Formats: sequence, structure tokens, C-alpha cells
Amino acid sequence: MKPINVGLLGIGTVGSGTFRVLQRNSEEISRRAGRAIRISVVADKDTARAQAIVGDAARVTADALEVVNDPQIDIVVELIGGYTVSKELVLKAIANGKHVVTANKALLALHGNEIFAAALKNGVTVAFEAAVGGGIPIIKSLREGLTANRIEWIAGIVNGTSNFILSEMRAKGAAFDDVLQEAQRLGFAEADPTFDIEGVDAAHKITIMAAICFGIPMQFSKAHVEGITKLTQDDIRYAEELGYRIKLLGIAKRKSAGFELRVHPTLIPTRQLIANVEGVMNAVLVKGDAVGQTMYYGAGAGAEPTASAVVADLVDVARMLTADPEHRVPHLAFQADQLSNAPILPMGEVETSYYLRLRVADKAGVLADITRILADQGISIEALVQKEPHAGEEQVDIIMLTHLTREKKIDAAIRRIEGLPVISGKITRIRMEALQ
Amino acid sequence: MKPINVGLLGIGTVGSGTFRVLQRNSEEISRRAGRAIRISVVADKDTARAQAIVGDAARVTADALEVVNDPQIDIVVELIGGYTVSKELVLKAIANGKHVVTANKALLALHGNEIFAAALKNGVTVAFEAAVGGGIPIIKSLREGLTANRIEWIAGIVNGTSNFILSEMRAKGAAFDDVLQEAQRLGFAEADPTFDIEGVDAAHKITIMAAICFGIPMQFSKAHVEGITKLTQDDIRYAEELGYRIKLLGIAKRKSAGFELRVHPTLIPTRQLIANVEGVMNAVLVKGDAVGQTMYYGAGAGAEPTASAVVADLVDVARMLTADPEHRVPHLAFQADQLSNAPILPMGEVETSYYLRLRVADKAGVLADITRILADQGISIEALVQKEPHAGEEQVDIIMLTHLTREKKIDAAIRRIEGLPVISGKITRIRMEALQ
Repeated sequence: MKPINVGLLGIGTVGSGTFRVLQRNSEEISRRAGRAIRISVVADKDTARAQAIVGDAARVTADALEVVNDPQIDIVVELIGGYTVSKELVLKAIANGKHVVTANKALLALHGNEIFAAALKNGVTVAFEAAVGGGIPIIKSLREGLTANRIEWIAGIVNGTSNFILSEMRAKGAAFDDVLQEAQRLGFAEADPTFDIEGVDAAHKITIMAAICFGIPMQFSKAHVEGITKLTQDDIRYAEELGYRIKLLGIAKRKSAGFELRVHPTLIPTRQLIANVEGVMNAVLVKGDAVGQTMYYGAGAGAEPTASAVVADLVDVARMLTADPEHRVPHLAFQADQLSNAPILPMGEVETSYYLRLRVADKAGVLADITRILADQGISIEALVQKEPHAGEEQVDIIMLTHLTREKKIDAAIRRIEGLPVISGKITRIRMEALQ
Repeated sequence: MKPINVGLLGIGTVGSGTFRVLQRNSEEISRRAGRAIRISVVADKDTARAQAIVGDAARVTADALEVVNDPQIDIVVELIGGYTVSKELVLKAIANGKHVVTANKALLALHGNEIFAAALKNGVTVAFEAAVGGGIPIIKSLREGLTANRIEWIAGIVNGTSNFILSEMRAKGAAFDDVLQEAQRLGFAEADPTFDIEGVDAAHKITIMAAICFGIPMQFSKAHVEGITKLTQDDIRYAEELGYRIKLLGIAKRKSAGFELRVHPTLIPTRQLIANVEGVMNAVLVKGDAVGQTMYYGAGAGAEPTASAVVADLVDVARMLTADPEHRVPHLAFQADQLSNAPILPMGEVETSYYLRLRVADKAGVLADITRILADQGISIEALVQKEPHAGEEQVDIIMLTHLTREKKIDAAIRRIEGLPVISGKITRIRMEALQ
């Protein structure tokens, strides 16, 4: 089947991430979408840089309008940002009958009502998973995953820059201005950080989520927007002493008289999972009347996390264009004739670290015997604790954490160690995962 | 437009939750789906109990086969469980050209390959969001939200009973058997808890997720299955001392030689967000090459959380049957002509609790003046801390947390308090959310 032809507008950070992910995972993505998805033309003012990124895999032009008018293009991906040129291009693409994928939260929060009306009229889709929460599939979860629910409220850490600053202020006791400079140095804050630290970016995002949760139009102008620039070290410390952490939350709530829509610094109980979302990570907590609380966590920005959402939208559109409607999404995510027959590995071949607990006689040389056996199997030890013997006992517990090893090696070592005369009973072995 | 007719097989806990959610949220659900979804017939052996639940809203029969053969039924919801009768009924429904929604993880982990092949042949959908993670839309996230990624691994706390037992063992220092009995008393463990505590249920779920992540057939028989029954209090305590928490994880990993597929108790660093998922809650952590780590958290069982997933699948099928393919999912989750025009509330009407920080003269009567003003506005105080004055200073900080109040009331109180002569400068006011 003929590939889906994509025209990419803007090949900056997210655009080049999108290009790279589509190339690197093309086989995997085709297996899921049912056909190939390829960026065939890229529009960017800096054509030389664009050409260097795409090589001869795509045509490069400086003229975005040419892409939007190109009859060969099925889907336009808008990654220009802002809301003047990008709005014109998106509306023109829609008028030309093209589907649009965009990461532009400002455009949608301000002009989404007009854009979606145009899309409806022209029979095309405008997909925008990348506009909120980077690669977290939060738009899809709200729009398709929680459809059974009357959503009561939603609260999100949706601006990584602010969350990084608040995390650092708390962890290092540093002042706002110092941490902001550090964030700029690390690339977590822009040269002009106003939209991030004043809550505007978070307000764009909560405006979009509120519309989806409650079935209301985009109403950015009604949102209360308050940033983190006035927070002091004192407040962060006092909050902590009281069992709270301060986060910049975007909040939307259903009330009998209407809806709350607001962004501001917020104390939340430290024991809450979302209070422990640190650094540039994002998380959105949703309360539905049937499902209760669910939370969605991940990287809220960055080239490839955002590209992950852009490409997911491309696959959604491709599945829609490709399959008969009753088979839009394959049962197991991959097309039925595209399943792999690679084997499930036996446990002996599985690699993890291990926690070991041994009960041993409290005498010299025991540890040397044990560590020798582990070394013979090529197993190295990350931590070892010998507990004090209980009163009146002659045996002690030894706890060990190993580095990564294969299960068959640890099991061979355990069998040999259990054979030592100084060992009492069986060794307890529990697998560890760093989940990094 | 004519409603979608659903036949429900089995009206136990999840079945009655599904019936209740569809009735309670019928208006909201129709606004999302584009047409009404109604359970028109219910099959259950206990017809008297079924009749008591559904009243005259649906017909009740003892004969599930009759429902599966009923030409009026568009979608069959299978909530019987097990894998003998349920398998027959699902295959018969598929053969009759009906779409199927099921929460049956055992059935899919063991017979999914056969069932999906039959569905493909007959041009119908088998939807199973409720089979893993209760109301968390994890199947949709993996299948549609992360399609850009080469999934590297997935690790999930997907059995609430086991997680409850491990949480209690750690928090209370209790033994496995005692906590199991408590879980049974609370309804968090079944009379025969084997499938939960021996890891079988978690293995069904990780088998399903692995198939979707990696594009492999269901291979339950190859999964390594190990439960929590051998864990001792000592191990939990020692792990904690070393900075780890023990969780029953279902793990699937891509390796060069094939795939790992396993369920076993696992030490994970306490600083990891997923290590802090406690009680009956579930969470699934997914590592994709583009998106990095994302996590999905929520109630993994229970009547309405599971119903939330069942109904989401019904809406998915309804949208597919209703709209032309290019409009399967409305942009803002609700049909475009179904948006609400209820207002966004002004901030003065928003209700939250507040953190207040005041700098006051360190003399008698100050606190009385302040609390009097708050009381006049009907604002009650949850906590109040007066800090020690810094050396050589005559002023002290007072920190207060209030109970819920409207913003216009707190602002009125603040204006009056700031007018007191003993107050220095402005009062710092930060909103609080309990996120309960």
C-alpha cells in the first residue's frame, strides 16, 4: 500500500525529533499503522539546516504555503509555533482537505474553536496530542479512555520549566532567580521564560484539557493565570514543614454554577503521588465519578517525547485512512499479519540484580567463601550488610545486593553457597529492578 | 439516531457497575458517543437478583446464548469470567457478527490468539480495556498513544490484592497470613486468593500488555509466575533499610534474543514514583525509546473503575459505528454540536483552602485580632504556627492553613488584616488542594 505522505512545517527541536523517530522506528510504525508514513517535504526558513537534517530523504523548501497547497501531501504537521502564520497555514491546509497534526497549544487555546469548526466543515481531522504533556497520551486518555465518566476535576503539573525551578528551590534552598538562570543554562528554560514562569503555557494546556473533560469550547481568556515568580524560599520551606509541597498546578473543576479554570502555585500534601513529581517531568491527575483518580506521568517536553505524540497522531490518522472503519485500530496494536515470532526467554537468561539474604555462622572466613563463589560466577556485589547477631544466637543475617547478572548464574552460585557448612537453611533471593 | 443495543452477560460486581454508570452518565456518554448506548438485555443465572438491579430498564434472561443470538443486539459485553463458557459465548457472538467487549484477562491471555483471529475473519472488534488495570486506559495508551515508540520494557503493579498485602506488611509489620485475612475481611482478597497471591492474575495481564507492546502473540504458558506468599517481614524491612521497596511486578522486556515475560516480587528504589503506589492501586511504567518513561496510575479493580473501562470500549465501538470514519473521535471528546455554554467561574467564586504567611509584631493580642477577622468572614483555621523571632528582630512569621473557603472571602479578610497596625507588609496567600 502507498505510503502516507506527510508535509512538515518547521524542523526545529520537535520537528527534527519527529523526523528522526519516524526514520528510526519506521519498520515498527508501519507494522502498527498498516502502511508506511513518510515525511516527503519539509518547509523551514533555514533551508540549509533543514537539508542537513533530512539528507536526501525529503525535499526541502522555504515556502510553507507550497507544502500546504501540495496535492501530494495527505497530512500537514505544524511545528512552527505562535499563532499568526501558523493559524493561516493550518486553516489553509484544512481548506485544502488535508488532515493536520500540531503541537501548538497556544494556537489551539486561542483559536481552537475556529480551527475545529473549519475541520468539521471540511471533513478532516486536527490531531494535537503533542500540545499537552509532551509524550504522555493525556489527550487520548481524556477523550477516549475516560468517556464513561463525568469528570469532576483535573489537576496537572504541565509546565516542566516551572516544576524544575520549584524542585531545585526546594532541594537546594536556592532563590528563584538563581534557579531560573541554572534552568536557562541547562536548556530547561528559554531566553525569554515569561510564558513558562508566569503560568501562560500551563494555562494554554489546562484550557485545552478543560474543553475535552467537560465538553466546553476553548476559553483561554477566562482562565486565571498566576506564575511562580513571587514564591520565596521561606514559603517553600514552611510548606514542607507542614507536610506540603508547592507545585504550579493547572486546575479545572466542575461546580454547580459553572467551571473553575485556573493556574497558580498550589500546596499539595507531600504524601500525594503527584507532589513527588520532580524536575522537568509532567503529571496530570484526573478525577472521574466512575474511575476515581487516575494519573498520567512522563516527560512533558523535549524533542523525542514530543515527537512521540506527533507520530502517534500520524499513526491514528493513517489507521483511519487505511483500514475499513471496523478495523481502525488492530486488536494487539500491530496489524494481525505483522506479529513477531521471536521467543520468550527462559528465566535462566533473564538479567536482573538480586537481593540475597543468608543466615550464616558468625565466624571468620565465611564472607570470603561466599564472595569467592559469587566471583567465580562473574557476579559482582553492589552492597553488603552484616546484621548484628540477636542476643544468645550464634548466627547472623547477611544481606547482599548484586549488580546485573543472569539468573542461571545467580542460581548456580546459590546452590554452591547453600552447600557451605556455615550456611543455615535456604538463601532468600529476590529480583531487583532499577526501572531506569 | 437509534441507540446502540448492548447485551450484558453476567451482572455481578462489574456488570452492575457498568449498568449503573451507563444509566447515571447517559447524557454525558451520549454527548461523547454521538448516540445513546443502552443495555437492553441482561443474561444472568440469578434472574431475580438481575431483575432487582435493572428494574424495567432492560429485559432479563437466564440464557446467555439467547443474547448472543439476538439479532437486535449490536454489542455483547462478556463479564462472566473463566474460560470455558465465556469462550464459547464470545466466539458465538463473533460468529454472529457482533462486537464484543470483555474484562476477561484469563480468557484473553489463554485464548486471545484464537478469539482475535475469529474477530478479524468476521469483521468485528473485540475490545478489552477493562482486562488490565481496571479503569486506567493502559491498553489504549499502549496501542494508540505510544505507537511511535519501540517499547523497551514495561513493568506494572497490576494486582491490587498483592499490592495491598505488601503495603500492609510494610506499614504495620504484620505477617503475610494475618494481612491476607484482613484483606479477605475487607473484600480486597477473594475466599480463594490463589490467582492473586500466586501471581497468576498479574501474569495474565502482563501477557496481554507484552503482546501489545511488542507485537507478539499471547504466550501465557511461557510466562514465569511467582507470587508473594514466601515473602517475610524480615525481607520487607531489610529492603526498606537499603532504600528499596518490594512490589509484585509484572515485567516484559525486549532483549536481542527475544522477550522476557515474568511476574515476581521485586525490589525497586523507594525514590521511584512507582515504589510509592500503595494499597489496592495499580500503576504501569512503560519505557519507550522516544518518549522515555511514562506511568499510568489508578484503581485496578472495583465495580465502577472497571465499568469505566467497559463503557469506554462501548463508546469506542459506538463512535466507530456512528460516524463516518474521518470523524470517529470528536476533536474535543464531545460531539461538536454538544458543547456546553456554562460559564467559567470568576476566581472570587473558586473554593480552596489557603496557606497564609503574615509578618506581625511579637506582642499580645495580635493573634486574637487576626482570627477575629477570619471568623467574621466565616473562615476557619486548620493549622497555625507562630515561628520564633529571629535574633534582634521584633517581628515574627505566622503561618496559617485555612479550611475550604471562597476566594472573595479570604481576599476580604486579607485586606482587613493588612490594615491592622501590627502587620508588616503584604500577606502571602497560596492556594491549597488536597486532591482527594
